[in-house]
Amino acid sequence: MKLDERLKADCHVICELTESTLLLLNNALVDWFILVPHCEEIELTNLPFQQQTAILNEVNLVARFIQQTCAPDKLNIATLGNVVSQLHIHVIGRKHSDPYWPAPVWGQSPSEPYTEEQVQQKKDQFTAFLNSTNHQAG
Amino acid sequence: MKLDERLKADCHVICELTESTLLLLNNALVDWFILVPHCEEIELTNLPFQQQTAILNEVNLVARFIQQTCAPDKLNIATLGNVVSQLHIHVIGRKHSDPYWPAPVWGQSPSEPYTEEQVQQKKDQFTAFLNSTNHQAG
Repeated sequence: MKLDERLKADCHVICELTESTLLLLNNALVDWFILVPHCEEIELTNLPFQQQTAILNEVNLVARFIQQTCAPDKLNIATLGNVVSQLHIHVIGRKHSDPYWPAPVWGQSPSEPYTEEQVQQKKDQFTAFLNSTNHQAG
Repeated sequence: MKLDERLKADCHVICELTESTLLLLNNALVDWFILVPHCEEIELTNLPFQQQTAILNEVNLVARFIQQTCAPDKLNIATLGNVVSQLHIHVIGRKHSDPYWPAPVWGQSPSEPYTEEQVQQKKDQFTAFLNSTNHQAG
Protein backbone atom coordinates (compact mmCIF):
# COMPACT_ATOMS: atom_id res chain seq x y z
CA MET A 1 0.00 0.00 0.00
CA LYS A 2 1.31 3.43 -0.94
CA LEU A 3 0.94 6.20 1.61
CA ASP A 4 -0.87 9.28 0.29
CA GLU A 5 1.60 12.08 -0.54
CA ARG A 6 -0.09 14.61 1.71
CA LEU A 7 -0.13 12.25 4.70
CA LYS A 8 3.52 11.48 4.02
CA ALA A 9 4.38 15.18 3.94
CA ASP A 10 2.39 16.09 7.06
CA CYS A 11 3.24 13.15 9.32
CA HIS A 12 5.99 11.00 10.81
CA VAL A 13 5.66 7.21 10.56
CA ILE A 14 5.66 5.81 14.09
CA CYS A 15 5.09 2.11 13.54
CA GLU A 16 3.71 -0.55 11.21
CA LEU A 17 0.87 -2.42 12.90
CA THR A 18 -0.91 -5.51 11.60
CA GLU A 19 -3.89 -3.67 10.12
CA SER A 20 -2.53 -0.21 9.60
CA THR A 21 0.38 2.21 9.58
CA LEU A 22 0.53 4.50 12.61
CA LEU A 23 1.41 8.11 11.88
CA LEU A 24 2.05 11.11 14.10
CA LEU A 25 0.84 14.41 12.67
CA ASN A 26 3.73 16.86 12.72
CA ASN A 27 2.16 19.28 15.17
CA ALA A 28 3.52 19.23 18.70
CA LEU A 29 0.64 21.36 20.03
CA VAL A 30 -1.75 18.40 20.16
CA ASP A 31 -1.36 14.61 20.53
CA TRP A 32 -2.62 13.70 17.08
CA PHE A 33 -2.14 10.20 15.71
CA ILE A 34 -3.45 8.77 12.46
CA LEU A 35 -4.03 5.12 11.57
CA VAL A 36 -3.87 4.30 7.86
CA PRO A 37 -5.40 0.84 7.29
CA HIS A 38 -3.73 -1.36 4.69
CA CYS A 39 -6.49 -1.31 2.08
CA GLU A 40 -7.68 0.47 -1.04
CA GLU A 41 -11.25 1.07 0.22
CA ILE A 42 -11.90 4.67 1.28
CA GLU A 43 -14.97 4.06 3.50
CA LEU A 44 -14.36 2.27 6.79
CA THR A 45 -17.90 0.88 6.81
CA ASN A 46 -17.49 -0.64 3.33
CA LEU A 47 -14.76 -2.97 4.64
CA PRO A 48 -15.65 -6.51 5.79
CA PHE A 49 -16.88 -6.21 9.39
CA GLN A 50 -14.09 -8.43 10.70
CA GLN A 51 -11.51 -6.07 9.20
CA GLN A 52 -13.34 -3.11 10.74
CA THR A 53 -13.16 -4.68 14.19
CA ALA A 54 -9.46 -5.45 13.71
CA ILE A 55 -8.92 -1.79 12.86
CA LEU A 56 -11.05 -0.78 15.85
CA ASN A 57 -8.74 -2.89 17.98
CA GLU A 58 -5.79 -0.77 16.80
CA VAL A 59 -7.79 2.40 17.46
CA ASN A 60 -8.17 1.09 21.02
CA LEU A 61 -4.45 0.45 21.21
CA VAL A 62 -3.59 4.01 20.18
CA ALA A 63 -6.28 5.43 22.47
CA ARG A 64 -4.75 3.50 25.37
CA PHE A 65 -1.29 4.74 24.45
CA ILE A 66 -2.49 8.34 24.42
CA GLN A 67 -4.29 7.85 27.75
CA GLN A 68 -1.18 6.35 29.35
CA THR A 69 1.40 8.81 28.02
CA CYS A 70 -0.39 12.10 27.24
CA ALA A 71 -3.06 12.47 29.96
CA PRO A 72 -5.80 13.74 27.60
CA ASP A 73 -9.01 15.33 28.87
CA LYS A 74 -10.91 13.85 25.90
CA LEU A 75 -10.27 11.60 22.95
CA ASN A 76 -11.38 12.62 19.47
CA ILE A 77 -11.71 9.73 17.00
CA ALA A 78 -12.73 10.39 13.43
CA THR A 79 -12.54 9.29 9.83
CA LEU A 80 -13.42 12.08 7.41
CA GLY A 81 -11.39 11.84 4.19
CA ASN A 82 -12.87 14.90 2.49
CA VAL A 83 -9.44 16.18 1.44
CA VAL A 84 -7.22 13.08 1.60
CA SER A 85 -9.35 10.23 0.33
CA GLN A 86 -7.04 7.37 1.44
CA LEU A 87 -8.79 5.80 4.43
CA HIS A 88 -7.28 7.16 7.63
CA ILE A 89 -8.53 7.40 11.18
CA HIS A 90 -7.63 10.24 13.48
CA VAL A 91 -7.04 9.31 17.13
CA ILE A 92 -6.38 12.51 19.01
CA GLY A 93 -5.77 13.33 22.64
CA ARG A 94 -7.37 16.67 23.42
CA LYS A 95 -6.62 18.85 26.42
CA HIS A 96 -8.54 21.76 27.84
CA SER A 97 -5.20 23.58 27.55
CA ASP A 98 -4.58 22.83 23.86
CA PRO A 99 -4.79 25.91 21.61
CA TYR A 100 -7.86 24.69 19.68
CA TRP A 101 -10.03 23.43 22.54
CA PRO A 102 -12.99 22.88 22.37
CA ALA A 103 -13.06 23.24 18.57
CA PRO A 104 -12.31 20.26 16.33
CA VAL A 105 -8.63 20.17 15.34
CA TRP A 106 -8.96 20.30 11.55
CA GLY A 107 -7.89 23.44 9.76
CA GLN A 108 -6.77 25.18 12.93
CA SER A 109 -3.67 27.26 13.48
CA PRO A 110 -1.10 27.76 14.93
CA SER A 111 0.88 24.57 14.40
CA GLU A 112 4.36 23.67 15.68
CA PRO A 113 6.56 20.92 14.19
CA TYR A 114 8.10 18.30 16.45
CA THR A 115 11.87 18.25 16.91
CA GLU A 116 13.67 15.09 15.75
CA GLU A 117 14.25 14.24 19.41
CA GLN A 118 10.55 14.53 20.20
CA VAL A 119 9.62 12.25 17.29
CA GLN A 120 12.18 9.67 18.37
CA GLN A 121 10.82 9.87 21.92
CA LYS A 122 7.28 9.19 20.67
CA LYS A 123 8.54 6.20 18.69
CA ASP A 124 10.42 4.86 21.71
CA GLN A 125 7.40 5.40 23.96
CA PHE A 126 5.16 3.57 21.52
CA THR A 127 7.59 0.66 21.17
CA ALA A 128 7.80 0.35 24.96
CA PHE A 129 4.01 0.53 25.17
CA LEU A 130 3.62 -2.21 22.54
CA ASN A 131 6.07 -4.41 24.42
CA SER A 132 4.16 -3.85 27.66
CA THR A 133 0.89 -4.89 26.01
CA ASN A 134 2.41 -7.77 23.99
CA HIS A 135 0.69 -6.36 20.91
CA GLN A 136 2.38 -7.43 17.70
CA ALA A 137 3.76 -4.88 15.30
CA GLY A 138 2.90 -5.50 11.63
CA MET B 1 -30.36 6.79 29.87
CA LYS B 2 -31.15 10.48 29.76
CA LEU B 3 -30.43 12.31 26.52
CA ASP B 4 -28.18 15.35 26.89
CA GLU B 5 -30.20 18.58 26.81
CA ARG B 6 -28.21 20.07 23.94
CA LEU B 7 -28.58 16.96 21.79
CA LYS B 8 -32.29 16.95 22.61
CA ALA B 9 -32.61 20.60 21.56
CA ASP B 10 -30.57 20.24 18.35
CA CYS B 11 -31.90 16.92 17.04
CA HIS B 12 -34.95 14.84 16.20
CA VAL B 13 -35.17 11.29 17.56
CA ILE B 14 -35.44 8.92 14.59
CA CYS B 15 -35.38 5.52 16.24
CA GLU B 16 -34.35 3.48 19.27
CA LEU B 17 -31.85 0.82 18.28
CA THR B 18 -30.51 -1.97 20.49
CA GLU B 19 -27.26 -0.22 21.43
CA SER B 20 -28.10 3.40 20.86
CA THR B 21 -30.63 6.11 20.10
CA LEU B 22 -30.52 7.39 16.53
CA LEU B 23 -30.85 11.14 16.14
CA LEU B 24 -31.11 13.42 13.11
CA LEU B 25 -29.41 16.79 13.53
CA ASN B 26 -31.94 19.50 12.70
CA ASN B 27 -30.07 20.83 9.66
CA ALA B 28 -31.50 19.91 6.29
CA LEU B 29 -28.37 21.13 4.45
CA VAL B 30 -26.44 17.96 5.26
CA ASP B 31 -27.39 14.32 6.01
CA TRP B 32 -26.18 14.31 9.61
CA PHE B 33 -27.14 11.47 11.93
CA ILE B 34 -25.96 10.90 15.50
CA LEU B 35 -25.90 7.63 17.43
CA VAL B 36 -26.08 7.98 21.21
CA PRO B 37 -25.07 4.68 22.82
CA HIS B 38 -26.97 3.59 25.92
CA CYS B 39 -24.16 4.02 28.45
CA GLU B 40 -22.66 6.45 30.92
CA GLU B 41 -19.09 6.13 29.62
CA ILE B 42 -17.95 9.12 27.57
CA GLU B 43 -15.05 7.46 25.69
CA LEU B 44 -15.98 4.86 23.06
CA THR B 45 -12.68 3.04 23.54
CA ASN B 46 -13.22 2.69 27.29
CA LEU B 47 -16.27 0.49 26.69
CA PRO B 48 -15.94 -3.31 26.66
CA PHE B 49 -14.75 -4.26 23.17
CA GLN B 50 -17.86 -6.35 22.50
CA GLN B 51 -20.04 -3.30 23.19
CA GLN B 52 -17.84 -1.22 20.87
CA THR B 53 -18.31 -3.70 18.03
CA ALA B 54 -22.06 -3.78 18.63
CA ILE B 55 -22.07 0.02 18.36
CA LEU B 56 -19.88 -0.21 15.24
CA ASN B 57 -22.51 -2.50 13.78
CA GLU B 58 -25.11 0.25 14.24
CA VAL B 59 -22.68 2.78 12.71
CA ASN B 60 -22.57 0.43 9.69
CA LEU B 61 -26.35 0.31 9.63
CA VAL B 62 -26.67 4.09 9.55
CA ALA B 63 -23.86 4.37 6.99
CA ARG B 64 -25.71 1.90 4.75
CA PHE B 65 -28.94 3.84 5.21
CA ILE B 66 -27.23 7.08 4.18
CA GLN B 67 -25.61 5.39 1.19
CA GLN B 68 -28.92 3.94 0.05
CA THR B 69 -31.10 7.01 0.53
CA CYS B 70 -28.86 10.09 0.33
CA ALA B 71 -26.19 9.26 -2.33
CA PRO B 72 -23.26 10.77 -0.39
CA ASP B 73 -19.89 11.42 -2.01
CA LYS B 74 -18.14 10.64 1.30
CA LEU B 75 -19.04 9.50 4.78
CA ASN B 76 -17.72 11.32 7.83
CA ILE B 77 -17.76 9.28 11.05
CA ALA B 78 -16.58 10.81 14.29
CA THR B 79 -16.83 10.86 18.05
CA LEU B 80 -15.52 14.09 19.56
CA GLY B 81 -17.49 15.11 22.65
CA ASN B 82 -15.55 18.28 23.40
CA VAL B 83 -18.73 20.29 23.94
CA VAL B 84 -21.39 17.64 24.66
CA SER B 85 -19.66 15.02 26.77
CA GLN B 86 -22.37 12.33 26.50
CA LEU B 87 -20.94 9.70 24.16
CA HIS B 88 -22.30 10.25 20.66
CA ILE B 89 -21.10 9.24 17.23
CA HIS B 90 -21.65 11.39 14.17
CA VAL B 91 -22.44 9.51 10.96
CA ILE B 92 -22.67 12.08 8.20
CA GLY B 93 -23.25 11.85 4.48
CA ARG B 94 -21.20 14.54 2.77
CA LYS B 95 -21.69 15.82 -0.75
CA HIS B 96 -19.42 17.89 -2.93
CA SER B 97 -22.44 20.17 -3.27
CA ASP B 98 -23.09 20.62 0.45
CA PRO B 99 -22.40 24.17 1.70
CA TYR B 100 -19.49 23.15 3.97
CA TRP B 101 -17.57 20.79 1.65
CA PRO B 102 -14.72 19.92 2.05
CA ALA B 103 -14.51 21.36 5.57
CA PRO B 104 -15.63 19.33 8.59
CA VAL B 105 -19.25 20.06 9.48
CA TRP B 106 -18.85 21.26 13.05
CA GLY B 107 -19.41 24.90 13.82
CA GLN B 108 -20.33 25.78 10.24
CA SER B 109 -23.11 28.02 9.03
CA PRO B 110 -25.62 28.42 7.44
CA SER B 111 -28.04 25.88 8.87
CA GLU B 112 -31.64 25.13 7.85
CA PRO B 113 -34.16 23.30 10.03
CA TYR B 114 -36.13 20.37 8.63
CA THR B 115 -39.85 20.74 8.13
CA GLU B 116 -42.07 18.35 10.11
CA GLU B 117 -42.84 16.54 6.87
CA GLN B 118 -39.16 16.03 6.11
CA VAL B 119 -38.51 14.64 9.57
CA GLN B 120 -41.44 12.24 9.25
CA GLN B 121 -40.14 11.19 5.82
CA LYS B 122 -36.70 10.40 7.30
CA LYS B 123 -38.35 8.33 10.05
CA ASP B 124 -40.45 6.46 7.50
CA GLN B 125 -37.43 5.86 5.26
CA PHE B 126 -35.43 4.53 8.20
CA THR B 127 -38.24 2.24 9.32
CA ALA B 128 -38.57 0.87 5.79
CA PHE B 129 -34.80 0.42 5.62
CA LEU B 130 -34.76 -1.44 8.96
CA ASN B 131 -37.54 -3.72 7.76
CA SER B 132 -35.64 -4.43 4.54
CA THR B 133 -32.51 -5.41 6.51
CA ASN B 134 -34.41 -7.30 9.24
CA HIS B 135 -32.44 -5.31 11.82
CA GLN B 136 -34.22 -5.13 15.14
CA ALA B 137 -35.14 -1.82 16.65
CA GLY B 138 -34.32 -1.46 20.38
